[in-house]
Amino acid sequence: MEKRVEAIADMNQDFAQWYTDVVRKAELAEYAETGGCIIYKPYGYAIWELIQKHLDEKLKETGHENVYMPMLIPEHLLQMEKDHIEGFAPEVAWVTHGGTEKLQERFCIRPTSETLFCSHYAKDIQSYRDLPKLYNQWCSVMRWEKTTRPFLRGREFLWQEGHTAHATAEESLAEALKILDIYCDLSSEVLAMPYIKGQKTEREKFAGAVSTYTFENLMHDGKALQSGTTHDFGDKFAKAFGIQYLDKNNKQQYVHQSSWGVSTRLMGAIIMVHGDNNGLVLPPAIAPIQVVIVPIAAHKEGVTEKSQQLQAQLSKIARCKLDTSDKKPGWKFAEYEMKGVPLRLEIGPKDIEQNQCVLARRDTSEKITVPLDNLEPTITETLNSIHQNLYNKAQKRLQESTHTAQDLPTMKTILDTTAGHIKAMWCGADECELRIKEEATATSRCIPFNQEKVGNTCVVCNKPAEKMVIWGRAY
Amino acid sequence: MEKRVEAIADMNQDFAQWYTDVVRKAELAEYAETGGCIIYKPYGYAIWELIQKHLDEKLKETGHENVYMPMLIPEHLLQMEKDHIEGFAPEVAWVTHGGTEKLQERFCIRPTSETLFCSHYAKDIQSYRDLPKLYNQWCSVMRWEKTTRPFLRGREFLWQEGHTAHATAEESLAEALKILDIYCDLSSEVLAMPYIKGQKTEREKFAGAVSTYTFENLMHDGKALQSGTTHDFGDKFAKAFGIQYLDKNNKQQYVHQSSWGVSTRLMGAIIMVHGDNNGLVLPPAIAPIQVVIVPIAAHKEGVTEKSQQLQAQLSKIARCKLDTSDKKPGWKFAEYEMKGVPLRLEIGPKDIEQNQCVLARRDTSEKITVPLDNLEPTITETLNSIHQNLYNKAQKRLQESTHTAQDLPTMKTILDTTAGHIKAMWCGADECELRIKEEATATSRCIPFNQEKVGNTCVVCNKPAEKMVIWGRAY
Repeated sequence: MEKRVEAIADMNQDFAQWYTDVVRKAELAEYAETGGCIIYKPYGYAIWELIQKHLDEKLKETGHENVYMPMLIPEHLLQMEKDHIEGFAPEVAWVTHGGTEKLQERFCIRPTSETLFCSHYAKDIQSYRDLPKLYNQWCSVMRWEKTTRPFLRGREFLWQEGHTAHATAEESLAEALKILDIYCDLSSEVLAMPYIKGQKTEREKFAGAVSTYTFENLMHDGKALQSGTTHDFGDKFAKAFGIQYLDKNNKQQYVHQSSWGVSTRLMGAIIMVHGDNNGLVLPPAIAPIQVVIVPIAAHKEGVTEKSQQLQAQLSKIARCKLDTSDKKPGWKFAEYEMKGVPLRLEIGPKDIEQNQCVLARRDTSEKITVPLDNLEPTITETLNSIHQNLYNKAQKRLQESTHTAQDLPTMKTILDTTAGHIKAMWCGADECELRIKEEATATSRCIPFNQEKVGNTCVVCNKPAEKMVIWGRAY
Repeated sequence: MEKRVEAIADMNQDFAQWYTDVVRKAELAEYAETGGCIIYKPYGYAIWELIQKHLDEKLKETGHENVYMPMLIPEHLLQMEKDHIEGFAPEVAWVTHGGTEKLQERFCIRPTSETLFCSHYAKDIQSYRDLPKLYNQWCSVMRWEKTTRPFLRGREFLWQEGHTAHATAEESLAEALKILDIYCDLSSEVLAMPYIKGQKTEREKFAGAVSTYTFENLMHDGKALQSGTTHDFGDKFAKAFGIQYLDKNNKQQYVHQSSWGVSTRLMGAIIMVHGDNNGLVLPPAIAPIQVVIVPIAAHKEGVTEKSQQLQAQLSKIARCKLDTSDKKPGWKFAEYEMKGVPLRLEIGPKDIEQNQCVLARRDTSEKITVPLDNLEPTITETLNSIHQNLYNKAQKRLQESTHTAQDLPTMKTILDTTAGHIKAMWCGADECELRIKEEATATSRCIPFNQEKVGNTCVVCNKPAEKMVIWGRAY
């Protein structure tokens, strides 16, 4: 695809710079005076609000309730689950003073809120009648990262974190898998992003979990992105926090828990899966502007009126913006392409004469002339078609960028040249996984649910192997 | 009104205890392990979500855009506006360590975000074309309070904070007044709470503002509550932060700014304006459950089916819940009264036989028998009538609890006996205001826009006075 915007780097030459350029030029975010943090600008935040709306509805439909826990965790609470504190202590921000007074106990800003939910559940759950608890919260969390990139890795990010408590081990596992499906639907049906879903290895699982499940998206540069995870805790946290309930036989039992989250990291995925050399490309479902109307020769009689009339009409079926500013049409075209607006509608004096307009698709650059009498169904169909086309393109790239390897040197060669996902058999030994990490600088993305036997022996040690694992270099 | 629930304190005997009882028994919030902070439970958070939805729509309709700024403010940034740092420094929480490292510069958790918005605007605004900026953010803020009460005063609370930048002084003032009107509409039309609106005195205005505007609600115990404020900053922050734009004549000009916010404090207002000895009473517009269906003799043939059918039918016009649990109807009645559900629908075998049901109003305890054929319009009308009745009752109380005073001893006597709002003339001198604060332990609530000459001389010094001020003891 030809690069029509000079202001941003070429994605094929400098992907990292291209990414940063898109984030800023599309006005998604800006660097903040607070180091390692970003400002979510109106256009970027509006995308996040649309993602939130979709997911929040799904979570409520499935019986989840929103709550809000404090942002500060007392140090003694963070320390109650051993693996959890080991995983998070190195990267939390500590509050030590309130006003001018030194505090008797430090508080950390939540890096995640398992400990707060557990502490609440320990008091709030008494009987089997109180179960399940299906709580979710929308908030920001903080992790004191050294190197940061907008949306992908930041000291503060926005997310939802679900924390549930159930009567049995089967139920908490079922919940972790059910939410993974909801996330995967969000990925494919809303964000037009194909995914690989599976289980994390022991090495890659969440600090404190029994098992972690993930959906992984492949970025345009062949790198992997863990877009969201769900965790089954079994009764590990319940035992650490003493969360018990009286069952129907009047016996004390520990609850079984899950937690799960997706974050503004999804914004990074959208940019890197769909974007091109003209900037952002947004899936229609989360585009703050789905159709932008650009009047041509707006000074001519009737053009502005007709544009306004079309905007009023189309606002009933789509998020529609009319740009009546005094910039030249060509500038507007480039600006809304940069912002990834799925459809541009051009209308000028000649179009009005012929009772038609021109629709330009952001994803294919295709332009079609549409009779105004047929405009609404055409727009609805075209938005659906754009979603499908974005998904298909990304799916094709995912397939083309997925390779298999029978030995470690091949794996390394592939990663050094074409990148992408690598399917390889693994014996299950941590030392083999570690060698891949050290020698091929790749991590196990997941043990996909959709297994496929690409060999019989471990890609590292050559011993018999049952599991096919997806490996890759990741953000 | 007779007190039908034994589990909560009598509001006329111990209002503070009644308040805490309602917060907990209605399952709005619970104390958190993090001192001074609360957990917003599902029912409480659902009310907040409904308030957010109403206000967010109004703000978007009037051209405001949501953004998100970092939760941490670098110390040097907080210090840039002199009055602002003096006002907030004593009550901020300080982050001094990231992981195991001591930070070179401290960060405070935002007590409010003027400084972050100003720092962003200084970079982002260049030309008159960039104005106005009408930004809003939904977030939580932290103030290290010593004494806390759920919703009313807490270390962390949820709110929205708007921060706008304009070309002229007239525009920033107009914005502060326009938002005050939006807040007042929220108070009366959504929350059924009458209000007094006006300007804060110099002593009571926001740290760094040129002028502060407020809407004040009167609680059931005669104490005042500042429910929300808007501030005109003029160019004070613009000069401190160097926020300038090039005007149409190519001259550098300082912007003029406003900020404004309402918080989960509104939840406290709702409880204390409408609640009674049976618990919470919710205005229908923000009731998570507007109609609860309680089947009578649910084991009898057809009752459960009919209840389910009614729930499906009514869910189209109201937020409707069916309680099919095995608790006795009487228990359910008390539970949903405690939770302030505006309407209860009872249906049993005899009702079904006669094609009718019983509706019980939470606000008046009135029960009416309604033919099922006429159910939908009756429910819509009754919900409207409940809103109006709640407003009228609160309005009557506000009028009856508003007194006038011509001298300081009278003011003190009134406050010590009946409490309420006191109208009194004020000369404008800070020392007179201070004497009222010290001798009558009352603060100026506002200089109401709706002025009324209740005398000619200052209630303290007896010098000529032009301004009528509302005074009161406040939360």
